[in-house]
Amino acid sequence: MDGPDAKGLIFHVTSVLYRNECNIISQDEYVSPAVGLTEGQFFMRTEFESPDKLDPQKVLKDLREAIASPEINLRINPKKKKDVVILATKEHHCLSDLLIRYNFDELDANILAVVSNYNTLQPFVSKFGIPFHYITHEHKTREEHEDAILRTLEIYQPEYLVLAKYMRILSPEFVSHYPNKTVNIHHSFLPAFIGANPYRQAYERGVKIIGATAHFVNNNLDEGPIIAQNVKEVDHRYMATDMAREGKEVEKSVLTQALKLVFNDRVFIYGNRTVVL
Amino acid sequence: MDGPDAKGLIFHVTSVLYRNECNIISQDEYVSPAVGLTEGQFFMRTEFESPDKLDPQKVLKDLREAIASPEINLRINPKKKKDVVILATKEHHCLSDLLIRYNFDELDANILAVVSNYNTLQPFVSKFGIPFHYITHEHKTREEHEDAILRTLEIYQPEYLVLAKYMRILSPEFVSHYPNKTVNIHHSFLPAFIGANPYRQAYERGVKIIGATAHFVNNNLDEGPIIAQNVKEVDHRYMATDMAREGKEVEKSVLTQALKLVFNDRVFIYGNRTVVL
Amino acid sequence: MDGPDAKGLIFHVTSVLYRNECNIISQDEYVSPAVGLTEGQFFMRTEFESPDKLDPQKVLKDLREAIASPEINLRINPKKKKDVVILATKEHHCLSDLLIRYNFDELDANILAVVSNYNTLQPFVSKFGIPFHYITHEHKTREEHEDAILRTLEIYQPEYLVLAKYMRILSPEFVSHYPNKTVNIHHSFLPAFIGANPYRQAYERGVKIIGATAHFVNNNLDEGPIIAQNVKEVDHRYMATDMAREGKEVEKSVLTQALKLVFNDRVFIYGNRTVVL
Amino acid sequence: MDGPDAKGLIFHVTSVLYRNECNIISQDEYVSPAVGLTEGQFFMRTEFESPDKLDPQKVLKDLREAIASPEINLRINPKKKKDVVILATKEHHCLSDLLIRYNFDELDANILAVVSNYNTLQPFVSKFGIPFHYITHEHKTREEHEDAILRTLEIYQPEYLVLAKYMRILSPEFVSHYPNKTVNIHHSFLPAFIGANPYRQAYERGVKIIGATAHFVNNNLDEGPIIAQNVKEVDHRYMATDMAREGKEVEKSVLTQALKLVFNDRVFIYGNRTVVL
Repeated sequence: MDGPDAKGLIFHVTSVLYRNECNIISQDEYVSPAVGLTEGQFFMRTEFESPDKLDPQKVLKDLREAIASPEINLRINPKKKKDVVILATKEHHCLSDLLIRYNFDELDANILAVVSNYNTLQPFVSKFGIPFHYITHEHKTREEHEDAILRTLEIYQPEYLVLAKYMRILSPEFVSHYPNKTVNIHHSFLPAFIGANPYRQAYERGVKIIGATAHFVNNNLDEGPIIAQNVKEVDHRYMATDMAREGKEVEKSVLTQALKLVFNDRVFIYGNRTVVL
Repeated sequence: MDGPDAKGLIFHVTSVLYRNECNIISQDEYVSPAVGLTEGQFFMRTEFESPDKLDPQKVLKDLREAIASPEINLRINPKKKKDVVILATKEHHCLSDLLIRYNFDELDANILAVVSNYNTLQPFVSKFGIPFHYITHEHKTREEHEDAILRTLEIYQPEYLVLAKYMRILSPEFVSHYPNKTVNIHHSFLPAFIGANPYRQAYERGVKIIGATAHFVNNNLDEGPIIAQNVKEVDHRYMATDMAREGKEVEKSVLTQALKLVFNDRVFIYGNRTVVL
Repeated sequence: MDGPDAKGLIFHVTSVLYRNECNIISQDEYVSPAVGLTEGQFFMRTEFESPDKLDPQKVLKDLREAIASPEINLRINPKKKKDVVILATKEHHCLSDLLIRYNFDELDANILAVVSNYNTLQPFVSKFGIPFHYITHEHKTREEHEDAILRTLEIYQPEYLVLAKYMRILSPEFVSHYPNKTVNIHHSFLPAFIGANPYRQAYERGVKIIGATAHFVNNNLDEGPIIAQNVKEVDHRYMATDMAREGKEVEKSVLTQALKLVFNDRVFIYGNRTVVL
Repeated sequence: MDGPDAKGLIFHVTSVLYRNECNIISQDEYVSPAVGLTEGQFFMRTEFESPDKLDPQKVLKDLREAIASPEINLRINPKKKKDVVILATKEHHCLSDLLIRYNFDELDANILAVVSNYNTLQPFVSKFGIPFHYITHEHKTREEHEDAILRTLEIYQPEYLVLAKYMRILSPEFVSHYPNKTVNIHHSFLPAFIGANPYRQAYERGVKIIGATAHFVNNNLDEGPIIAQNVKEVDHRYMATDMAREGKEVEKSVLTQALKLVFNDRVFIYGNRTVVL
């Protein structure tokens, strides 16, 4: 749940769960401080076990009555794997990390399909028995290309899109089909080195640390809410290509870390920030 | 609060706070999983603001009535600086880190005095206007030495003892005067290299990472509940003395980090483990 | 090269390379300090490009003449991929990390085969077209089992063995066939938690950091020269199984990091320590 | 030494040192790769012990003759502490870290004086017996203020200036007095959050990691060659002020780390990058 802070929110939730004989396994909440005229915002994630006979919608209804505020968003997510489609281009490292985890049942998601604008990764993906859709952007306008992808996505009806080093910019129109449901990995420590060739930029600036950023995609390139970041030390011996090679290790671990949070319903979006409970 | 897990604990606490018009600022809880015949253990730390007129003892009384279980420990700690005495020997790095923070009002504690079995650090401590007690262990039995220290501590009535590289082993009798209130920094990544000369041992084993451990002191040397640990990479060029020098940076940061948690009442002791909320 | 330190070693090497018109790309050396009666030990790794017509053996001969000390070990390793066989049991994470890198030509080694005492990983390994040898230890003495493995290894003549979570103890006899050529990943931050079930031990000690160690295997279990170590923070919420799950991320990254060093001839063994240049 | 790469440079240096009976303790070199028309650049740092009777200038002269290239810069720095003056404003954390190390003889520098545009830190600095110069910028043009500082610096003739959270921008004219000899600590992970209030910017962008950067000061604000960087994880609970508080820990450790490298003559400046040997 999230919404404007008010007295008694935790009390009302725990009362409802207590009356419904639910057992709270974990509960985390956060209240953003009120600043000037902006009131505090309340976020809470409660994990609970319910009696077998209990309908989750009954709990949700009770919660709505107890809290009685239309401004408070309440959601109940039964614990289950999320359905996802992965978009990739030519680089394998993020994709292969996800496929391996999926193959060994270590990912909190079902990978329904992989879509790519190149066929480079097709042989690899097919080892895992996952549909691979090669949708080239050549000889297509951006709109035509995105339409082709959207039609493919419609087949799978994924809950989340994962951009695993998908190297093309998505239009606001495309993004609007999966609002707050598209996760991208950016190969820099945002907001440093926005845009093209971040490792080249990092090399030229002579930085001693490089990084990667997983974020939700919104309409502004590289500016969506950040979910997770991580870094790696480099030194003068790293040329741009060395940074790119070592950066891949960071990219894949950050993307996996972010997806684990997202697929477990731990990430709230608040303005351009995330609250991770 | 902590004690055996039971249904409704969070509900009862939030009810009492709600009725008393207290505003919950943050609330963290943890339930250790039931294992075999051992039932789960419940830990909760709630930070709340109370109305000015409210007596904390009233809240505590209400909580006891609502929870009605003698096995549940309930404590209310008003937010205030803890009174501490620091024990040191000859090394300055942990002590000076604490003194600087205290000097600039960045420590959640009042440093009442420094006690040392050497007078090496006296000139430094006196710069900060803090009493320094030089109590040599020479020509004394351990019992006599500890008695002398205990008599000095009685003057100050500290809530916590901090062993800031105090290099003598304390007897169970001494420790029993400050049960779960004595924090030590050990210069190794426990449980590796228990005992004397850990950096020498680390060098001889050829490790690539060294560390430090802050822990509560109990009757078994280096075996009390761990509060915080941190590490630092080393390589073949580090002799034991180099490890010791670089290790000091880790020691002081781990001790400071642990004390911040302890002084903010965030650390629960459970068997030989800590739960940090 | 390595051996007892002596004046002029660097000079002699650079002279020989200069006369042979070799271009030094990088050169790293280390001299262990003389301690008591033990003299310093000299280690140097020089990467150089030689003229096309030059026979490396000619350089080696010139070096031997210039240095003229039988105690100095000189080796010339042409840059090439190492031939390796991987031993595994049931866990996939280290193995799959290596196979993916090998599949995309990102490993400085040729994986000739995988040997396992279970057939669990056979379907996965076969996706990559790599021979998989299932050699059960059931109904065999240790000697018989190791003999069966050794006969399989003889087919491949690997330069290195990689124990990618191979969960059986190897006899000194077995180890002696690949002296200083067997790399193991141990699932603890050695020397903490030697032996069985390190994550269980870590949980019971209540540590706040777990780790993994890649090391050469010698005759004493878990006591060979350490190549690389890394760690990860945990907290009270981690049960032993959680530590094991998260520890796998560390294990695979440490093993990969260590192998990169070993396969690039960067690791010298000196007593029970490694010098990594 | 540094300059355009050429065959035989290492050979010539080791020859000269060998003939002069110097013992090489450590030697590190780096050659930046030739890119397009830009040839490679050679950097080497050799630490050696010379016979007592030997004049360093004799070695330098021999080196110049052996190398015989005016483009190669050769320097001999006898091992000694550097003379420095520290500039600060109101924040103590970087300054106090340096003063403590200096007080206990753990800094490779002599702190000759502290200059500040506020008198806030005067009482603290005076505890350590170090001259404190309070030079306010009020009622002065920038030129007048910098002139006043420069006149004070002339008294001390420092080799290096350390800007320990000196919060005013220095003019190119000022900087030109200490070319490549002024080290600044910037409170962000450059090049992210250039300019004012980086922690405020970091908060608004919702980053999950903050950092600090130590760099040489040149004429472009926050754009000089980077010496060292480090980072710290944050989360949604950190407001800008929390980031600032925690960031101080990173700032002081990065500045100390950078100064250790600079004062040991390990840092070469090459364009806008540093090579650290």
